[in-house]
This record gives sequence, C-alpha cells and structure tokens, in this order.
Amino acid sequence: MKDEFEWIESITPKKNHQPTMIEGIGDDAALIRPETEFDDILCVDTKVENIHFSRKTMSPYQIGYKALAVNISDVAAMGGAPKFFLVSIAIPQDWTEEELQEIYRGMEDLADKYTVDLIGGDTVSTSGPLVVSVTAHGRVQKDRKLLRKNAQQGDTVFLTGPVGLSAAGLELLLEDQVSDDFKSLLDAHQLPEPQVGAGLLLAESGFKIALNDISDGLASESHEIAEASQVHIQLRYDQLPVVDEFNHFTAGQVLDWMLYGGEDFQLVGTVPREDWPALEKLFSENGQPLHEIGEVVEGNKGVTLQKGDDLIPISKKGYNHFSQ
Amino acid sequence: MKDEFEWIESITPKKNHQPTMIEGIGDDAALIRPETEFDDILCVDTKVENIHFSRKTMSPYQIGYKALAVNISDVAAMGGAPKFFLVSIAIPQDWTEEELQEIYRGMEDLADKYTVDLIGGDTVSTSGPLVVSVTAHGRVQKDRKLLRKNAQQGDTVFLTGPVGLSAAGLELLLEDQVSDDFKSLLDAHQLPEPQVGAGLLLAESGFKIALNDISDGLASESHEIAEASQVHIQLRYDQLPVVDEFNHFTAGQVLDWMLYGGEDFQLVGTVPREDWPALEKLFSENGQPLHEIGEVVEGNKGVTLQKGDDLIPISKKGYNHFSQ
Repeated sequence: MKDEFEWIESITPKKNHQPTMIEGIGDDAALIRPETEFDDILCVDTKVENIHFSRKTMSPYQIGYKALAVNISDVAAMGGAPKFFLVSIAIPQDWTEEELQEIYRGMEDLADKYTVDLIGGDTVSTSGPLVVSVTAHGRVQKDRKLLRKNAQQGDTVFLTGPVGLSAAGLELLLEDQVSDDFKSLLDAHQLPEPQVGAGLLLAESGFKIALNDISDGLASESHEIAEASQVHIQLRYDQLPVVDEFNHFTAGQVLDWMLYGGEDFQLVGTVPREDWPALEKLFSENGQPLHEIGEVVEGNKGVTLQKGDDLIPISKKGYNHFSQ
Repeated sequence: MKDEFEWIESITPKKNHQPTMIEGIGDDAALIRPETEFDDILCVDTKVENIHFSRKTMSPYQIGYKALAVNISDVAAMGGAPKFFLVSIAIPQDWTEEELQEIYRGMEDLADKYTVDLIGGDTVSTSGPLVVSVTAHGRVQKDRKLLRKNAQQGDTVFLTGPVGLSAAGLELLLEDQVSDDFKSLLDAHQLPEPQVGAGLLLAESGFKIALNDISDGLASESHEIAEASQVHIQLRYDQLPVVDEFNHFTAGQVLDWMLYGGEDFQLVGTVPREDWPALEKLFSENGQPLHEIGEVVEGNKGVTLQKGDDLIPISKKGYNHFSQ
C-alpha cells in the first residue's frame, strides 16, 4: 500500500465542477463560498461490508458508485442540487489498492455526472469490515422545505418511478441468476440512479410537498411521512408502476419487493390535490415521469393499500439495523 | 437495543444553539441558512476502535468528546467558528446502549461548550470494531484563507500552546501510571481542547497566515506547511513551550513527545515577521497565549531544529495509517 499522502494525492480529483469551491482536498478542511439565494443541505450515510453490501453482489466500483448515490438521493429528497461530498473510508487489510481505486472510480463517475466535487475525507485502517461513509452537501432554493411533515389530508400521493427493482436485482444476484434479461433489475441494485431532476422540479413547483427518497422501502417511507405529518396514507395497488421484468415473478413476490424492498431511490411524496394537475404538467413538459399512487385520507396515522375492494394495513417493516 | 427510530429520538438534541439551523435531525437531510459574510468550512474525521483509541485508555464519554474535538480543531485550523456537526457511527454487538449514550453525552457536552448543533447522522451495525466518523461544518470570515501554502521565507513560526502532553498522557495510561499529579497530561489525551479562540483571532488579524492543527505531531504538521509552501522551517528548541509535568521525564523523551506525539490540537502557523508584534499584541490583549518557536529560513523544503549550536534535521514521521 502507498504512503497515506501519496494515496490522498491519487484520489484527489484532477478537475472540479463547482465554481463556489474555494479550497478542496489538501488542508485541514475544505472552504466553499455560500450562494445567497439557496439554503444548504447536509447529510451523511454509511455503508458497512456484509451488512449493506457484499463482494458477492457488488463490485468495488459499484460500492463506490452506490455509496455516493444514496447521499445524492438524500439531497434530491430535499429538492436540492448536490454540490460537494466528503468520503471517510475505514480499510481492512484484505482490500487491495486496486480495489480501493475502483471504489473511488465509481464515485468519481457518478460525481462527474452530477457535477459534484470531492472536497475532503479521511482514510483510516480497520481490523473489521470495510466502512464507507459519505457526507453530501447540496443547495435548494431558499425556503423550499420539502419535509416529511408537510402532508395534509386530501393530498395526492405520488412516486417518481417504479420500485422493487433493487430488491429483485439483489435476489437474482444472491441466487446467481444473473442474465441480460434482468439487466434493469441488476442495475437498479448495483448502480442506482438518484432522482435529482425530479427533486429539482418538485422544489421549483413551489407547492407544499412532503417528500422522502425510498431507501428503506415504499412502506417504511410512506410510514415516515404519515407519522411526521400525523396523517393516513392510502396507496392504490393498481396505480403502482411496474416494469415488464416483473412478469417473470409472482404477483405476491413483486408486491413484497415493491413495499419492503428498499434501495430504489425513487421519491415518494404528497402534494395538495388542487396542485396535482399543474405538477403533473410540469413533469410532463420536462419529460420526467410522475405517478399518482394514492391519497392522504382521514384516519389514524398509518398506511393502507387499497387492492380491489380490500383495504390492507401496511406495516412499517423495512430494514432496521437494530433488529437484524 | 432500542428500535433504530427510538434510538435516533434519544440522541436528538433537546435544544439548539445556531439560529441558522432550519431543519436538523429527522428528515432526509438537514437544512441550514448560509451567512453571506462568511465562507463555509467542511471536514470529516474518523476514529476506529483499537486503532485510534481503546477502551483501556478512553471511556465512552471521552471517545465521543474527542471524536468531535478533533473536527472542531480542524475548523479552528481554518480560522473558523464551528456551527454544525453530523455523526456516523458503526456499532459492534459488544457495545451496550449505555456506553453508546455516553459517547453522545461526551459529544453533547463539547457541542454545548462551543454552541455547535448536531444536525444529522447515520447509525449502523458492524461485525468489526466501533467506527465513529464526525463531519463538522464551520464558518470563517469571507476570503480569510489560513492555508498551509501561505508560509514565506522570513515568516515567524508560532504555536498556540505546549505540545507533547497528549502523547505523555497516553503513555501514562498504557502503563497504568494514572495519578492526579499528571491530570493535565491525561486530560490532554482524553479531553483535548480545540483552539477555536486562537483560530478566530488569527483570522481576525487579517495577516497572511499559514496554519495547521497538531493532530499528527509538531514535526509532521511543520513538514506539511513546509511542503505546501515550498519553504524551510527552523524550530528553536529553547523556545518550545513546556509544562511543569515534563520535569518528571527525561529531556529526550519529552522532545520525542513534543515533535512526534500528535493529538495535541494546538495550532502551529507562520506569519510575516513584520506582523508578528501586532499579532502578539492581539493575542495578549485577548488573554490568549501565543509562542514564537522559530522562523521560515532559506533552504530546501523541510524542517530543522536548532538546539544550541546544532541544526538537527527533523523527519516527518508522525502517525501514518498505511505504515502501521
């Protein structure tokens, strides 16, 4: 392994995208210039080997790509544009330098796509599994707060795209059923696409929107909105968007993936019913998909699924690190 | 262990200090309002159990306190005031909930002291050692860049306080020589004080200052300034500040601690010789210590120690994670 200082040199980006970066990697901390028409967004997300990913199902490149993607997704869920990120990585002995470079290459490719700059980090060794922690910084138009607590009775519930693909992809990977027919499912798990464009449109709309990105599953994220807003969310089974690849699996399995799968990084949200047509039009004009999937109804805080004539209570479930 | 959501609730601060916080813990990300007369500072630092600390030498409270202190120190080394922080923690099975609460209590006490707000984080499980990663955000007066590359030939080299105490304290802890006589050494290791006041004065001075906080030892940090600025730094042995407790140890041991010990979190820097008297006066008026310890001289980039008539080349050494 290289000297720590050579290593830092090797992962320092050769180019930068953001004009508000004053100093990036190389000093005690990074310096950035604020933009006055925006509020700043900050979040951190940590992935641990054999808890959140394994080398069986994810290449080092994909691990890096996804570690950044989940953070960009959190910025998108606040209606923001990602600007900067910092990476802390705890490295076990059994990872080679080439694999580590691949992790950073995966992050760099996604960073280039969203014009996000790596401005800092920390590289340490560990006797345990690989731990990658990414901090993301973004900016959202001033006073646009797309918070979980914004949902109100009567709101339309929307989703930016189909969910359950990532869970399906993971299952195929674990069962060694990798084939080109299922590429979109595998990609959804290994190289997920944060919904930055959709988040920006939602902020731009100016409507009172509650918003979450789907990291823990549609059920869990809907529950978070329901709980924060003290409302009842009713999802409609028939309106949940699906993909052709799901035809290869049973309806029960697909529904389980859609509700509890997680890691799809689509955005689920609510908007006042009277604003829904205008929001739908804004997305349509921008070539961005947006699906109505339910409504906020009278009732205790919680989530139900309307399927035919049935109203099925949906539990929170989803991934909970303490119950594993 | 509690449910993840109850856990987050339990560590969410009950009060906030910063008026520019719009949304803290509880959504996909935090929202903060920029301040236009300032630049933003961002940094991250990660501590791994049995690499950076052990339960033998640090209590959970001290681990939390220090994990935040090292980040506040990086903000201080940019001349900034710390404002917000995020905590990512990967928890092994053998840590109890009480111990984890103690980690957060240690952070909270330091956060209260510096009026810093916890605005986000991530809590995950791990099969390996405890990993605590803290991201700090701060603000520094616009265009005040106290960078390592600012040193110039003829500059005065200064230090904000005595160094080597933390290394001495660690050695006492490892050798079970804990006694009240050495409390200041133990405290320096377990509950280090970031030099925020000194950093703010250095930024306020308006002088062209190179600055580093001493996380890896005076030798290593001086080398970083020398390399970034392409200068030669000459430290003077007789001017290095010492503490009475050092009288119990040999001069050779003390010098080794002072040069290579690290984790003291004093600030080392350079300022143009003509500005030194004014800087000294500014510190004196504010009751802040500041020690002249050398100068930037002609020569190849590097560091030497002037001791009597000898000029001793000082190697970089210090802690390097890849060479352990």
